[in-house]
Amino acid sequence: MVTGERIAEILEGYDDLVMATVCSHSSLQIFHGARQEGFRTLGIAIGQQPKFYDAFPRARPDDFLIVDAYEDLPRHAEELVDMGAVAVPHGSFVEYLGAKAFVDLEVPTFGNRRVIGWESDRDKQRYWLSQAGVDMPAKIDNPDAIDHPVFVKYYGAKGGRGAFIAKNYDDFLEHVDKSQPYIIQEYVVGTRYYLHFFYSPLGKEGYRLSKGTLEVLGVDRRDESNIDEMYKLGSQEGLKKLGVYPTFVVTGNIPVVLRESLLPKAMEMGEKVVEASLDLFGGMIGPFCLETIVTDQLQFKVFEISSRIVAGTNLFVAGSPYSELVEPGMSTGRRIARELRRAEETGTLLKVVS
Amino acid sequence: MVTGERIAEILEGYDDLVMATVCSHSSLQIFHGARQEGFRTLGIAIGQQPKFYDAFPRARPDDFLIVDAYEDLPRHAEELVDMGAVAVPHGSFVEYLGAKAFVDLEVPTFGNRRVIGWESDRDKQRYWLSQAGVDMPAKIDNPDAIDHPVFVKYYGAKGGRGAFIAKNYDDFLEHVDKSQPYIIQEYVVGTRYYLHFFYSPLGKEGYRLSKGTLEVLGVDRRDESNIDEMYKLGSQEGLKKLGVYPTFVVTGNIPVVLRESLLPKAMEMGEKVVEASLDLFGGMIGPFCLETIVTDQLQFKVFEISSRIVAGTNLFVAGSPYSELVEPGMSTGRRIARELRRAEETGTLLKVVS
Amino acid sequence: MVTGERIAEILEGYDDLVMATVCSHSSLQIFHGARQEGFRTLGIAIGQQPKFYDAFPRARPDDFLIVDAYEDLPRHAEELVDMGAVAVPHGSFVEYLGAKAFVDLEVPTFGNRRVIGWESDRDKQRYWLSQAGVDMPAKIDNPDAIDHPVFVKYYGAKGGRGAFIAKNYDDFLEHVDKSQPYIIQEYVVGTRYYLHFFYSPLGKEGYRLSKGTLEVLGVDRRDESNIDEMYKLGSQEGLKKLGVYPTFVVTGNIPVVLRESLLPKAMEMGEKVVEASLDLFGGMIGPFCLETIVTDQLQFKVFEISSRIVAGTNLFVAGSPYSELVEPGMSTGRRIARELRRAEETGTLLKVVS
Repeated sequence: MVTGERIAEILEGYDDLVMATVCSHSSLQIFHGARQEGFRTLGIAIGQQPKFYDAFPRARPDDFLIVDAYEDLPRHAEELVDMGAVAVPHGSFVEYLGAKAFVDLEVPTFGNRRVIGWESDRDKQRYWLSQAGVDMPAKIDNPDAIDHPVFVKYYGAKGGRGAFIAKNYDDFLEHVDKSQPYIIQEYVVGTRYYLHFFYSPLGKEGYRLSKGTLEVLGVDRRDESNIDEMYKLGSQEGLKKLGVYPTFVVTGNIPVVLRESLLPKAMEMGEKVVEASLDLFGGMIGPFCLETIVTDQLQFKVFEISSRIVAGTNLFVAGSPYSELVEPGMSTGRRIARELRRAEETGTLLKVVS
Repeated sequence: MVTGERIAEILEGYDDLVMATVCSHSSLQIFHGARQEGFRTLGIAIGQQPKFYDAFPRARPDDFLIVDAYEDLPRHAEELVDMGAVAVPHGSFVEYLGAKAFVDLEVPTFGNRRVIGWESDRDKQRYWLSQAGVDMPAKIDNPDAIDHPVFVKYYGAKGGRGAFIAKNYDDFLEHVDKSQPYIIQEYVVGTRYYLHFFYSPLGKEGYRLSKGTLEVLGVDRRDESNIDEMYKLGSQEGLKKLGVYPTFVVTGNIPVVLRESLLPKAMEMGEKVVEASLDLFGGMIGPFCLETIVTDQLQFKVFEISSRIVAGTNLFVAGSPYSELVEPGMSTGRRIARELRRAEETGTLLKVVS
Repeated sequence: MVTGERIAEILEGYDDLVMATVCSHSSLQIFHGARQEGFRTLGIAIGQQPKFYDAFPRARPDDFLIVDAYEDLPRHAEELVDMGAVAVPHGSFVEYLGAKAFVDLEVPTFGNRRVIGWESDRDKQRYWLSQAGVDMPAKIDNPDAIDHPVFVKYYGAKGGRGAFIAKNYDDFLEHVDKSQPYIIQEYVVGTRYYLHFFYSPLGKEGYRLSKGTLEVLGVDRRDESNIDEMYKLGSQEGLKKLGVYPTFVVTGNIPVVLRESLLPKAMEMGEKVVEASLDLFGGMIGPFCLETIVTDQLQFKVFEISSRIVAGTNLFVAGSPYSELVEPGMSTGRRIARELRRAEETGTLLKVVS
């Protein structure tokens, strides 16, 4: 991992910060937010400048860094530093580059890069969440003990690819790819809410934690192919005969609001997860997402945490029903830029960049 | 019930109105809207100040009234009156306090408190809607006559808790709790739309009724646990063996718009329901919600009415595709505050407060 | 079809343009957008002035043309021309009037009226899309070859009425109405996205095509009765016994955003469809919608194209997460008005009106 000293050294040489990210996932929102706060922007892309940004003039990056492959990115670190880049991580950025290469990247990065190790290993993530004291679906250690529906997923985000439901050990054996690390969780029946938080170590007013403040900027539901519409063809039992199995590949997002009586519980969960992160590894900085199921007993089960901006926030580039109550028009992308700006102005960049 | 004379007397002693509500349900929206129209706000909570408001600075109430239990609220009536409070009812407010205690509360209340009696008794509600001439799902009086799917629900809002589908008498017996009053309705297959109206007895321009005007401020769909996602695990028949039964507990909301050709019908339904309310009990003032199913014959079936702000409007704190066509940024919470302001300015508070 | 010369002649006599459309479908959005760009508006309605516009003061048309039946509209062409009307087509406008009568209507029309012939005939539409090189669900020519689920639908929009799923030839025979032309497509399992584009032949900056530019102004999902909620009652097999069959009548819309990595593909599809339209019939001008399914392999299948404003854009009268990145608050209705205004100002009306 790059040391804090090295990052401090690099930042000392910076004049104007440039917000840089990989051209996918939530890049439109990040570039748009950066520009709203007056930052220059840099898009990192493979092979050639992506044309689709031309359709979004208010989000088009000012410059591009074109690489042959994401694995080559570390070799462009100096170039990025010369440009004054602060890398803003998102799910695809980390996935394309790899968690290991990401934490070793010698470019200042928004947030605490130590979070990557705690998030990408599903056992460590579970330890973190259990330390925080939030409810989770039960973990099944022994596949041949499956006697109720379970959800099996692999390490890393991957946008849901490969995940599957198993109702018994035979189901499990039929679908599992044992060459990858996986986790087996109880399948909890309920409605899903993806809660978008922002933890600011610089915050002084608002929902206060032991250090800094916590905001909630939106809530969405993920839209998954083919599970979300397969019921239209008939029962799963019947579809199995047609060779159609449920899959969970994220293809988009739908905006939702939460029953207001669940909101205090949601804030408390966010609070506990941040406090645990401060204890365990110095804190998860900036945006994060608690991925939850709400049961008909109105209880949250957190089945995953994403410790950076997630794509569901793309719904809210012009604000959400929640961010409206904080500051009208505030997206998560813009909130990241705002945090960088505040850190710059108060000489506390090292609190939000690593 | 508190008399109109008593309320008039109280209001005469008021200087600046303070909009007060219970800290749940749609309170963020109500407080936010109140502040947008320049009112002070008061949150009523149990035990201690809820911390979650700190995360929403534009909706945080100016003051709090902390009570030991909602049942104690009547004993705080004088205190509320001393503060200049006008209580804004919402589903949780009425449920927590109880319909009887709510109508007896000696605090000026937005809207006509006589509506409570017509709404909380499902038979009277049905009479009102049938007087209005809107289509409803058929009512089944005799449980042993169930030969098609029916929906059984208890009196009061309760956020859907306890409601169930029965396909025959055995199903009914298995799930019913006969200790509570319930209603059995035909289960209508279609798509659900929750239509958010606002009836202003002060309105002069717009969609005119015999007295006042009618607006539509948004449409949403409720998100219910576990019914909305249980299909992902397989057929209901198979899930029954796993001990999973469909439940209908509201956990959130999704924004929708209605096919435009349905809009004239929707407005007519709203109009008829208000006109019937004027005839039956002097009118349902302010926000209300028609809870409907649209069949594939493009016909509305109204399965319920809520005669106050409902939580689906929380999606639209910054406006909806409908309110945009009335006044940009108009939420239902703000619309209530606007109505109070207009009434204050025109000396007609008793038309909208009871 | 009315000739370009005739339209040119009519337009020469125009002073101020009036944007006119039939009072349904997306008329609120069209009138609202027209007013935002400073145009007068005209609503065409049957029998009497529709009252529901009174509830939407910012979208109420300035004037009405009341006809006895839509078939009579051609006889009112002169009247429309005297008013300076430019007709803005939408799904109901074309359906009520009939494709043939629409293309013969001697009133200037926004867009290229030659597109109607290519869209309303499902075989020509398929030829156009295959020329464009976009993926489509397979077409089944022979009903007795149905051995996998297929989707059967009739020509013309009709808001989904009559469409059905068949899993075999018997299913097909049971539901088909052979008196109407129909098409049989493979039923693709995945999530549906309705992509709202705008092609401007006048555009110079942005996402450039061989001529003009392409924008994406929003994405939605259609809400269909009864298919979208019938699963709540149990399996289709069980429901069949109760006489409940899946139907696909559009009743509303839900906003969505697309996984960002799908956006470049979406833009390319839009680009190819426009380029093919330029080759085949001089171009599809203005708004259009690609109606797609995204499989769990993250591939789009285009099952239909609508070559004009569709009702899903009604969600975005105050802007969408996409249009926000183009120009805040830009709806499709307003974008049409903006295009007319630009054409007027640059003397290029004949590029966008026919």
